Amino acid sequence: MKDKLADLKARLAEVADLESARAVLSWDQATYMPPGGALSRARQMATLEKLAHQKFTDPAIGELLDELQSWQSSLDYDSDQAGLLRATRRKYEKAAKVPADFMAQLTEHTSASFETWSKARPANDFNAVKPYLEKTLELSRQLANFFPGYQHIADPLIDFADYGMKAQTLRQIFANLRKELVPLVQAITQAAPANDTCLKNNFPIDLQRQFNRDIIRRFGYDFNRGRLDKTHHPFTITFSIDDVPITTRYSDQNLCDALFSTVHEAGHGMYEQNIKKGFEATPLATGTSSGVHESQSRLWENLVGRSRPFWNFFFPRLQQTFSEQLASVELDDFYRAINKVQPSINRVSADEVTYNLHVMIRFDLELALLEGNLNVADLPDAWRERYQLDLGVEPPDYKDGVLQDVHWFHGTIGGAFQGYTLGNILAAQFFAVATSVHPEINDEISQGEFGTLFSWLKENIYQHGSKFTADELVPRVTGSPLSIESYVSYLREKFGQLYKID
Amino acid sequence: MKDKLADLKARLAEVADLESARAVLSWDQATYMPPGGALSRARQMATLEKLAHQKFTDPAIGELLDELQSWQSSLDYDSDQAGLLRATRRKYEKAAKVPADFMAQLTEHTSASFETWSKARPANDFNAVKPYLEKTLELSRQLANFFPGYQHIADPLIDFADYGMKAQTLRQIFANLRKELVPLVQAITQAAPANDTCLKNNFPIDLQRQFNRDIIRRFGYDFNRGRLDKTHHPFTITFSIDDVPITTRYSDQNLCDALFSTVHEAGHGMYEQNIKKGFEATPLATGTSSGVHESQSRLWENLVGRSRPFWNFFFPRLQQTFSEQLASVELDDFYRAINKVQPSINRVSADEVTYNLHVMIRFDLELALLEGNLNVADLPDAWRERYQLDLGVEPPDYKDGVLQDVHWFHGTIGGAFQGYTLGNILAAQFFAVATSVHPEINDEISQGEFGTLFSWLKENIYQHGSKFTADELVPRVTGSPLSIESYVSYLREKFGQLYKID
Repeated sequence: MKDKLADLKARLAEVADLESARAVLSWDQATYMPPGGALSRARQMATLEKLAHQKFTDPAIGELLDELQSWQSSLDYDSDQAGLLRATRRKYEKAAKVPADFMAQLTEHTSASFETWSKARPANDFNAVKPYLEKTLELSRQLANFFPGYQHIADPLIDFADYGMKAQTLRQIFANLRKELVPLVQAITQAAPANDTCLKNNFPIDLQRQFNRDIIRRFGYDFNRGRLDKTHHPFTITFSIDDVPITTRYSDQNLCDALFSTVHEAGHGMYEQNIKKGFEATPLATGTSSGVHESQSRLWENLVGRSRPFWNFFFPRLQQTFSEQLASVELDDFYRAINKVQPSINRVSADEVTYNLHVMIRFDLELALLEGNLNVADLPDAWRERYQLDLGVEPPDYKDGVLQDVHWFHGTIGGAFQGYTLGNILAAQFFAVATSVHPEINDEISQGEFGTLFSWLKENIYQHGSKFTADELVPRVTGSPLSIESYVSYLREKFGQLYKID
Repeated sequence: MKDKLADLKARLAEVADLESARAVLSWDQATYMPPGGALSRARQMATLEKLAHQKFTDPAIGELLDELQSWQSSLDYDSDQAGLLRATRRKYEKAAKVPADFMAQLTEHTSASFETWSKARPANDFNAVKPYLEKTLELSRQLANFFPGYQHIADPLIDFADYGMKAQTLRQIFANLRKELVPLVQAITQAAPANDTCLKNNFPIDLQRQFNRDIIRRFGYDFNRGRLDKTHHPFTITFSIDDVPITTRYSDQNLCDALFSTVHEAGHGMYEQNIKKGFEATPLATGTSSGVHESQSRLWENLVGRSRPFWNFFFPRLQQTFSEQLASVELDDFYRAINKVQPSINRVSADEVTYNLHVMIRFDLELALLEGNLNVADLPDAWRERYQLDLGVEPPDYKDGVLQDVHWFHGTIGGAFQGYTLGNILAAQFFAVATSVHPEINDEISQGEFGTLFSWLKENIYQHGSKFTADELVPRVTGSPLSIESYVSYLREKFGQLYKID
């Protein structure tokens, strides 16, 4: 059995190395690559993707998994080896259904689509991306159809990101959450509005960078095994457990954009950096689902980074850094400003209360596109209508409307957005348990200390990587399956106090 | 035949993509990678190297080459297709003799060795690299021994870099050149020494960067298809014909270091950027030999960048950029300063006259190591002795002695250095022809114009990539095989004038 396991691990390491190489090429494409490199880079990434897929779907891997099956049943379910074999089989059974040529085609297309979007977005040019988006929709449908027997055509696509999750379940969760959010948004918009003029000023980018780096270093993001670079659409990517770069973007007119996006990506980064070292170069060496991953970024971004205790410590430092801009601002006013609730057209900069409404719009539009109930040509109008309906605002152009998010232009349609709301829900669910087990966490945060929280997350979530599925992990950590309860209480309490609502 | 050619090209593109991916990982390792990434990066690069080697040595490629043989004989020798088939066979026959596992072992070792050297050099720690170097020597010998029947054990290693070149031939060329250099160095050291105090000052790095970027942009280095980053040991690398990054290093105490290394790397970069587009992702898409490549970097660095006409145009600009430091300096004095001949311990910063003596030392030591006439343990002493003997100077430590150059720590021993001197020789040989066909080139250079020279190089050298071997290319371009004549005349004339020697 040892030989077979070693053989399997060697094959998995080869696949992981090809995937890591692709990750490096992709990171470079989004940070330092000169424009001329685009075409050849797309081809190179497609080749790596194709080879990784070929190697991973080699029937020899299926045979090894079968031969190891009886040994696997003898293992403790919680053992690393059992976890490795489960995760490998899960991934293998999905991958084996998709032909390598199709994967290469998809990669090459999404790479070209990304390049086009990168230029079309600033130019506000929906027509430029339309044929790419149509092709993406067609490829997304084809991909789903390699998994016949689904309830909803989006299910196989959602399953890639959030294993086991279904469109139907998500619709239910989102409907329940919406029932709580809509009255909360209404109550807030009727209350006295928060004033965020203190955030509107000139904040030199170098100072922002230093300040933000200091925050995430204190959180526990390890710069010896990571780095922070500039990009257009911030992301985290994994080259190995010991090399997890994050990216952000800066505007000298906007303090919050870089700050919260850096903190957000550091949350993703710390998850990937703290997976058990022994999982390196296996399918275990990444976060277990899009929802759980997002719970880690949103936890640090919102439950920590937008909390009162956090700014107790950091606001005096921020005032020192931007003494001219913030000298006369009170901590309470700053805290209200960064938590201002206001329906807007932008997801990434949306407040915690309206954020999920942005996600739900995208989720519903994805489903409608996949179902054939919406054409790509009609997407911009549908987008505008839903924004008007749900948030009472309307994007003035394509750039901040349908071209706003990279996802549909750099991957499939379907499965791209649900993780954000699942993440918000889980962030609150995890944080509630962490602070109940360790009530000192909030005190520590108000002293700029994050050790207890970090250790709890590492122990309970980070280290496991993909050893447990989200459905297994959430009850193990919190004692119950995913539930919106903690999240709704958190929002009601925080924003009830902020806006003086009962 | 068309199908077979298409099949061959598809296979070659896959290999090229794997090699390009490895190049991106390697570039990143030397520029932005955090220290923690080193171990996994070495493994990833070894995997890519191994897969590229496996794919390229697939017997199917040999069969396709055989099947295309008779068609090849019907082609015009100068046609791109004939060139592709020749270059592919050349590379295939070499690669097929080396087992993929060996290549992976070599890559993993050189990557680990590089990491160790990167730390050992600043720490002046020869003992840290000694076991790596011993292993490198052993692997270099093993590699050579996959090619039995050589005259000298270095021949197969030299052949990887400079196809067709032999240790014996090089010894002869170097002996002939040395006969000319030694009296020239002696005459110069007896003449009045040049004064280079004007170069010793503080030169802010940001200003250096801008100035250097401007120079190479004027040369024709295309920033839309390339970029300039910082590293420890400057290099050029190719991701594709349309993506050729170069790197440099800066010291605020040394104006010349970054300037001439940037210009040098831009010479390599322009070669790779201007290979015929149709050669993309084939063995033709790179410079044809280490010597010819180096001729392009040295041509721009020395024959252009250290020439009087060049500084006619750029010196007033340099004075504007560093007005405080250079306001009172005369052009003639500056020209003499940057061409100061002085035996030293450092190859990269050596003047044009003594430079080749540095190369010959390394070449002879490589040969002695491979022959078994020198142990790695004795290398630092041998290095010091040869420096004392040939240049009359001695490195005070390992850092600027045997640890000075990256080559032995990031590749094989054997074949690493001869290209520099071949390049110096060829640079003069090519430049003599270019200026004889286009006597206006020097006038243009003195006006900051490089179009005629660039076009001549592109037409005669760049565009061909590896279509012709060095042995074919040199007579085609210059009308005669490699010869030291132009180079010796150039040195005698330039330095004779500078040092007022007959």
